[in-house]
Amino acid sequence: MRFVHRSRVRFGHCDPAGIAYYPRFFEWFHDAFEAMFESIGGRSYAAILRDTGTGFPAVSTACEWRLPSRFGDLVDIEVFVSRLGEKSATFEYRVMREKELLATASIKVVAMDMVTHTSVGWPKLLMPGLTAHSEALADAPDTERLRR
Amino acid sequence: MRFVHRSRVRFGHCDPAGIAYYPRFFEWFHDAFEAMFESIGGRSYAAILRDTGTGFPAVSTACEWRLPSRFGDLVDIEVFVSRLGEKSATFEYRVMREKELLATASIKVVAMDMVTHTSVGWPKLLMPGLTAHSEALADAPDTERLRR
Amino acid sequence: MRFVHRSRVRFGHCDPAGIAYYPRFFEWFHDAFEAMFESIGGRSYAAILRDTGTGFPAVSTACEWRLPSRFGDLVDIEVFVSRLGEKSATFEYRVMREKELLATASIKVVAMDMVTHTSVGWPKLLMPGLTAHSEALADAPDTERLRR
Amino acid sequence: MRFVHRSRVRFGHCDPAGIAYYPRFFEWFHDAFEAMFESIGGRSYAAILRDTGTGFPAVSTACEWRLPSRFGDLVDIEVFVSRLGEKSATFEYRVMREKELLATASIKVVAMDMVTHTSVGWPKLLMPGLTAHSEALADAPDTERLRR
Repeated sequence: MRFVHRSRVRFGHCDPAGIAYYPRFFEWFHDAFEAMFESIGGRSYAAILRDTGTGFPAVSTACEWRLPSRFGDLVDIEVFVSRLGEKSATFEYRVMREKELLATASIKVVAMDMVTHTSVGWPKLLMPGLTAHSEALADAPDTERLRR
Repeated sequence: MRFVHRSRVRFGHCDPAGIAYYPRFFEWFHDAFEAMFESIGGRSYAAILRDTGTGFPAVSTACEWRLPSRFGDLVDIEVFVSRLGEKSATFEYRVMREKELLATASIKVVAMDMVTHTSVGWPKLLMPGLTAHSEALADAPDTERLRR
Repeated sequence: MRFVHRSRVRFGHCDPAGIAYYPRFFEWFHDAFEAMFESIGGRSYAAILRDTGTGFPAVSTACEWRLPSRFGDLVDIEVFVSRLGEKSATFEYRVMREKELLATASIKVVAMDMVTHTSVGWPKLLMPGLTAHSEALADAPDTERLRR
Repeated sequence: MRFVHRSRVRFGHCDPAGIAYYPRFFEWFHDAFEAMFESIGGRSYAAILRDTGTGFPAVSTACEWRLPSRFGDLVDIEVFVSRLGEKSATFEYRVMREKELLATASIKVVAMDMVTHTSVGWPKLLMPGLTAHSEALADAPDTERLRR
């Protein structure tokens, strides 16, 4: 089951070429991540951080852009979990414009105690939702393409 | 030879945890990319785009964060070219706080004709500089870690 | 009649003090402006620009922050038109957290032909909606406070 | 005596019209503000906040754009203090492209204790510098233009 976050490509997201400036995608991914956590945690993302004392910093990411996202596009950002570890997980993002796949990303985050800054287990609150949104990865980004 | 772009971690780059919000890194990488092109092209990045009719969209990226970048840090973003193809290249970024490596990124860009939107060869203007900043990649980001 | 655009104060909007970094408000205002135009123009903001050949740059703004917007807040951005001129207009923004007024802004924009870059009349397409959202200004921001 | 912060209008600052997206100006103003405080405080802005326990939130702003700032422009952001109160001050910004005035802004900030969140006097550390950069305001932004 993929979580879907709908977003409009706004004027301020776009560069002089009229397409989304690529750093904006990572803000969209974070927005979709927060919206997904709100959906599975039953409270705001801010409240999840406060109630569990846990933060979720990104430690690595791989992203591919296949087609440009243009000013005015209505995009659906699909999110699912491709790997759910004890203290970390990898979230997958698919940016869709109707049936077209515009971009994919894998972002690995760790669960971190916000006082001690050490990695901790996932808050119990989130486990049912994270499990429900887990999915085997059919189309792993070919990060080796970076080298070619 | 690595190009170095010095940057301060500003208040507005940081999140409620007091460290740089990760999408900001990609803006820093683009700023460093523009500064490097200005250095090797002898004119502003805007003038390079205008004079050559060529743009440089990112098509993929892999990034790892090793240590947090904190509000107030003075960081040096080192840039070099790890692969220089005919119509694309991979740029490497190393975010350093003095001797500490905070983050690494590989970003693949293509040279694109801004009218036809097709990939083209690198502008001759840039070749000596891109070649001078080329370097074999000693510490390829272990993108497989995303899966573990 | 005020147009209302609901928005969540996201992690990436906030600074190390845990409240919204003030430049972000202007992005929210622009998002609300685009959403209002989409509502009154019956098409995406991008399509309005393309179909009418008109852009809407800001020429001045006055903004007051009364209470901080905190990470996790759900805010309603109310928009209305306080002055509708032939070639320009002033849009008013009220950032509400339920009954609390967090911030107010007045932003003057001009209608500009995107080819000649000269000011032009408002596209006919938008006039009924702009008129319907016009409202006398009861609580003009006391910009003189800036001087005291 | 005006403090001057030089900045390049970067690709990611610009919108599909090829000029700086107006919310970016407020980020530039904050960057210039931080650079000025670093200059007068003799340490990073982050260290000023930490060492004095004081923050400097904006409470109101008025801004006028006179000419567009284009992608590639090299701009000088001049900063001075037009009103230095006991617990607040108004900072003036002039965005110059060589001799051309592109934009002006007045931003009122308060000095705030970061623990109690109440307004406090200016840190002694900053007073000589703030005084040295004070200047009577010759060209107050005509905020009444917003109404016309």
